[in-house]
Amino acid sequence: MSEQGKFITFEGPEGAGKSTQLRLLAEALRSRGMEVVTTREPGGTPLAEKLREILKTHRGSEVLHPETELLLMESARSQHAREVILPALERGAVVLCDRFYDSTTAYQGAARSIDTRMIGALNLFAAGYRKPDLTLVFDLDIESGFRRAGLRQETAGQYDRFEAENRSFHQRVREGFLEIARKEPERVKVINAEGTPEEVAGRVRKAADELFI
Amino acid sequence: MSEQGKFITFEGPEGAGKSTQLRLLAEALRSRGMEVVTTREPGGTPLAEKLREILKTHRGSEVLHPETELLLMESARSQHAREVILPALERGAVVLCDRFYDSTTAYQGAARSIDTRMIGALNLFAAGYRKPDLTLVFDLDIESGFRRAGLRQETAGQYDRFEAENRSFHQRVREGFLEIARKEPERVKVINAEGTPEEVAGRVRKAADELFI
Repeated sequence: MSEQGKFITFEGPEGAGKSTQLRLLAEALRSRGMEVVTTREPGGTPLAEKLREILKTHRGSEVLHPETELLLMESARSQHAREVILPALERGAVVLCDRFYDSTTAYQGAARSIDTRMIGALNLFAAGYRKPDLTLVFDLDIESGFRRAGLRQETAGQYDRFEAENRSFHQRVREGFLEIARKEPERVKVINAEGTPEEVAGRVRKAADELFI
Repeated sequence: MSEQGKFITFEGPEGAGKSTQLRLLAEALRSRGMEVVTTREPGGTPLAEKLREILKTHRGSEVLHPETELLLMESARSQHAREVILPALERGAVVLCDRFYDSTTAYQGAARSIDTRMIGALNLFAAGYRKPDLTLVFDLDIESGFRRAGLRQETAGQYDRFEAENRSFHQRVREGFLEIARKEPERVKVINAEGTPEEVAGRVRKAADELFI
């Protein structure tokens, strides 16, 4: 076995700046000569993106049941982990992933009330039992998140199934993420997402640097 | 709550005559005035049929990993159970299903060697914790199954991903089904699938009649 790479996941609500911060950290690490793989969930492989499309856009007379949604998320994760994440870590790369299994715990568990023990077992099974080395939870009050995500939606045109949920749903998601951070303080760091992208990037680099010392 | 209907599943290898026998039993029960819903897995709803299509036809450079295959099967099952099976049972109908979760135990567990405890937990979760009242396992030696399925394939044109597996795979599937029958003799009855459709139908009606006495 070669030396394992590092696996960093970016979590939090829509509008918290995850994707921007992921890009900025990728640039910073690459400038230090590291191989960095950036990816996202749900998705990350052609098959998993097909499942993402179903998850994000399913509408019509057939309800997408919460249990089905959970299992589809985990299907996409299983494929993504085995096709992209695990092979990259195996060759020593740094993998930065925009959302990973903590989103499932927060959205399907805390917000949709599916049994969190089942979700925990599924998360590990789908991830091939490889936990992230570091998880950054971008925390933002609900109103700021809505404002930021709303601005982006006006440009993009339409809300997807998750973004269309109400404020109490998003409050439960936020609480879900903070609960995970309380339970696994070694792995999960809460990042204050208020401020300019540069200010937030400083906080991210500080948290990430501990991994590479 | 109204009186619950009866849930009967038809299991076994390709070529064992499951679909024919399902149709014959449906006719027999309808002629006695019962409401009978016939359905199949994977599939049974528009969304689940979309997932069936991915499972049956996925090819190309991206490997469909066994864990992904399992989770996709369970996604389709979750949707099918909640949209079709559970509502039909709730209103007192008899539901006849061509394959259900024992196929997952046999194909993904016994034949593909995924942890059967994880599969057991997923099966129950996806099924909404409703077990079949009666499961008929159509048993046939591997060579007879291949001959019968082969005849059908010549007409239809092409083998799908499961049918294209080799004989030792199908031997493990058969053993998997027989093992389930040994473990749950009350629920699972092995039906000798050799003989004419009429002969086999006689055995099926005998097993099913015990449910309706």
